[in-house]
Amino acid sequence: MSTSTALLTDRYELTMLDAALRDGTAHRRCVFELFGRRLPGGRRFGVVAGTGRLLGLLRDFRFDEAELAFLRDHAVVSPETVRFLEGYRFSGTITGYREGELYFPGSPILTVEGSFAEAVILETLALSVLNHDSAIATAAARMSIAAGDRPLAEMGSRRAAERSAVAAARAAYIAGFSATSNLEAGREWGVPTMGTAAHAWTLLHDTEEDAFRSQIAALGTDTTLLVDTYDIREGVATAIRVAGTELGGVRLDSGDLPTVAASVRAQLDELGATGTKITVTSDLDEFAIAALAASPVDAYGVGTSVVTGSGSPTAGMVYKLVARQASDGSWVPVAKASASKASIGGRKTAFRTRSANGVATAEHVVVADGFEQPTAAVDRPDARALQVVLVQDGQTDAAYEGPAGVASAREHHLTVREELPIAALALSKADPALPTTYEDIEA
Amino acid sequence: MSTSTALLTDRYELTMLDAALRDGTAHRRCVFELFGRRLPGGRRFGVVAGTGRLLGLLRDFRFDEAELAFLRDHAVVSPETVRFLEGYRFSGTITGYREGELYFPGSPILTVEGSFAEAVILETLALSVLNHDSAIATAAARMSIAAGDRPLAEMGSRRAAERSAVAAARAAYIAGFSATSNLEAGREWGVPTMGTAAHAWTLLHDTEEDAFRSQIAALGTDTTLLVDTYDIREGVATAIRVAGTELGGVRLDSGDLPTVAASVRAQLDELGATGTKITVTSDLDEFAIAALAASPVDAYGVGTSVVTGSGSPTAGMVYKLVARQASDGSWVPVAKASASKASIGGRKTAFRTRSANGVATAEHVVVADGFEQPTAAVDRPDARALQVVLVQDGQTDAAYEGPAGVASAREHHLTVREELPIAALALSKADPALPTTYEDIEA
Repeated sequence: MSTSTALLTDRYELTMLDAALRDGTAHRRCVFELFGRRLPGGRRFGVVAGTGRLLGLLRDFRFDEAELAFLRDHAVVSPETVRFLEGYRFSGTITGYREGELYFPGSPILTVEGSFAEAVILETLALSVLNHDSAIATAAARMSIAAGDRPLAEMGSRRAAERSAVAAARAAYIAGFSATSNLEAGREWGVPTMGTAAHAWTLLHDTEEDAFRSQIAALGTDTTLLVDTYDIREGVATAIRVAGTELGGVRLDSGDLPTVAASVRAQLDELGATGTKITVTSDLDEFAIAALAASPVDAYGVGTSVVTGSGSPTAGMVYKLVARQASDGSWVPVAKASASKASIGGRKTAFRTRSANGVATAEHVVVADGFEQPTAAVDRPDARALQVVLVQDGQTDAAYEGPAGVASAREHHLTVREELPIAALALSKADPALPTTYEDIEA
Repeated sequence: MSTSTALLTDRYELTMLDAALRDGTAHRRCVFELFGRRLPGGRRFGVVAGTGRLLGLLRDFRFDEAELAFLRDHAVVSPETVRFLEGYRFSGTITGYREGELYFPGSPILTVEGSFAEAVILETLALSVLNHDSAIATAAARMSIAAGDRPLAEMGSRRAAERSAVAAARAAYIAGFSATSNLEAGREWGVPTMGTAAHAWTLLHDTEEDAFRSQIAALGTDTTLLVDTYDIREGVATAIRVAGTELGGVRLDSGDLPTVAASVRAQLDELGATGTKITVTSDLDEFAIAALAASPVDAYGVGTSVVTGSGSPTAGMVYKLVARQASDGSWVPVAKASASKASIGGRKTAFRTRSANGVATAEHVVVADGFEQPTAAVDRPDARALQVVLVQDGQTDAAYEGPAGVASAREHHLTVREELPIAALALSKADPALPTTYEDIEA
């Protein structure tokens, strides 16, 4: 696999580039905007994720000989365009919502400014990353809210493509999960990793007791034993007989969890293992987690539902040209006019208004006809600016990248989530928790 | 990003390895099986995909210094286990369904044989690849059947994580799609690529006519013009005025497609452009494609629904220990016993029985207690063997890898799909089209 990300691109972007280099429009300055027309799955808020990953992938967006050879050999573009791509580096500016920030329909999540040539070919990569990671983070935030103070681990790698799994673990952590089973997410993004044993561990041994004894010898009494390979009641009895009442925890991966958790808690308490914790991990989603709130459960592990966005595996964001220079050098806001997919032209600045006690009241978007960002508009005492500069003239702000970027995105998310009105925390399908309001100004 | 795939692994696999190296069970010979308990989304058949990708990723499954340093620094495993992993290479044998093959509940899609140590740590990688790719291929096959002879292009990269998008394009092609927009899928897997222009192309220019004129100058009259940026009727008129009646095609990306396609066809015919084709690309899935069967549409482009598995983004397959050596060296079939997730122990051989006129009648699974594969059982005139050797003693069969593997998987899929009973082609939710029957034998 090549480390270049340049071909993670839809062919039509290069076809357009080819034609634009030919007719001269390739050098027109442009503003592209990445936004969602609606929130996925009737959710009340969205969570922006993927920004820090995108910045790293953007650095690897270059056409090396292997990429150029493919484009040349398959006549995807003309020889002149191959020469242009040889020197390609994004030299424009990207502003956007901070990773971990909440978003609503129409929020200008990313604004990409540069020549048509350099900005148009980022469409697929930017959307791939933001659509996937934000879908996961949006679902994960709801699970994290439902779990309250109980630890919540992401364990869904096996139900997502192998590299998406790493991105999903990262996005879930930003949205409030406490750990992941995915080792690569630990290595690459600093997400805490966890995990003890599968059913195969018990089946490998001649008896369940052998398996438990060996696991405790290797990992200590503080480990978590999986007790549902054969019979749960016997499994729990064996676990405490082998480990003693200081056993760290037991894990339940099947059955009707509220019933099973209550019965296992009673059994553990009877055996004197009152400090042994119960982790549950079977087909949980935000609704199942909420339904276990009153059960004696100490920790959750979530797999399939979080890595697939709990019914909404993509955030459905789009990347649209919203302003460009005309042939006379003036700025023109542009927008698709067809009814079902209309968009709003012009460069946008966003802030979130808040009530006196800090509760968010609206997403406010200021639309400017021209190219300059109308920064003055956000100088309001009741408002919080939502955009930061991620890339300035081709230079990435390192604060948003790598493990440090993930840690600060998580912190930012947990902080701004507190601003949500109570109604936004309900799990049922409904309208967005905040209205998006627009204001037109002359730039 | 590291090219090693070894940390695309759940932590508990290495924890189990650690404990197994300590207690000696790590060297027990084992058989793991990858299978689905049910088909995703009430589908009538599943399509196996990802096998060829997995073989490549398996070759990169090695612990280099960067991976070992992470495991050491975070105390994931003991120093002894770090030393074991240093020399890790899978030396076992993997048999499995050919890529592109159909599968049903209980089909032994992959059988992995080796020591516990070498086989247990492949769980996450194998499941990630097969679960994702098979979910896409299963959805894609239904779309391909619904499209009939009309070309069907995959255009959903922007709605999938950036590397999954490549795998999705590959899986859709295996399941009958004719092309993809994704350039990396073209480069890495030989999938034909396609694409012309987005709305941004029209918006970049001072007028729609300028945009069309420029595209035709660059790509010739045979290109496809996107005509719905402003007003479709005007767009079509402009397209034919600029390109002439020899225009290759027009693309429609919005509106009620049956209505719009009929009206555009009528307009094109009136203008004399009777050979100009109509491609539609707006939010299509298998149901929308089927509903367009009687409309004057020449080609389909499918995005979100195919890359997200059309409602079932994961195939839900599992990887289970089904047989192992006991301490006395004898073979023991093993299985989890808990009611809701029970599995069937023992090594399995599968074949598909067919009626005299070649229609598939059942998935037949022969279960052997021991380690040896009961090959003789498949010598039946009415049956087709389903498993091939993918990896023999650590050596991959190159025929299943790379672009050649993709091409032969696609051919295999299109051939075996013909065996399905007619009822299997219906799009409604139902039971699997074939029953899975089991037969126990003494190995």
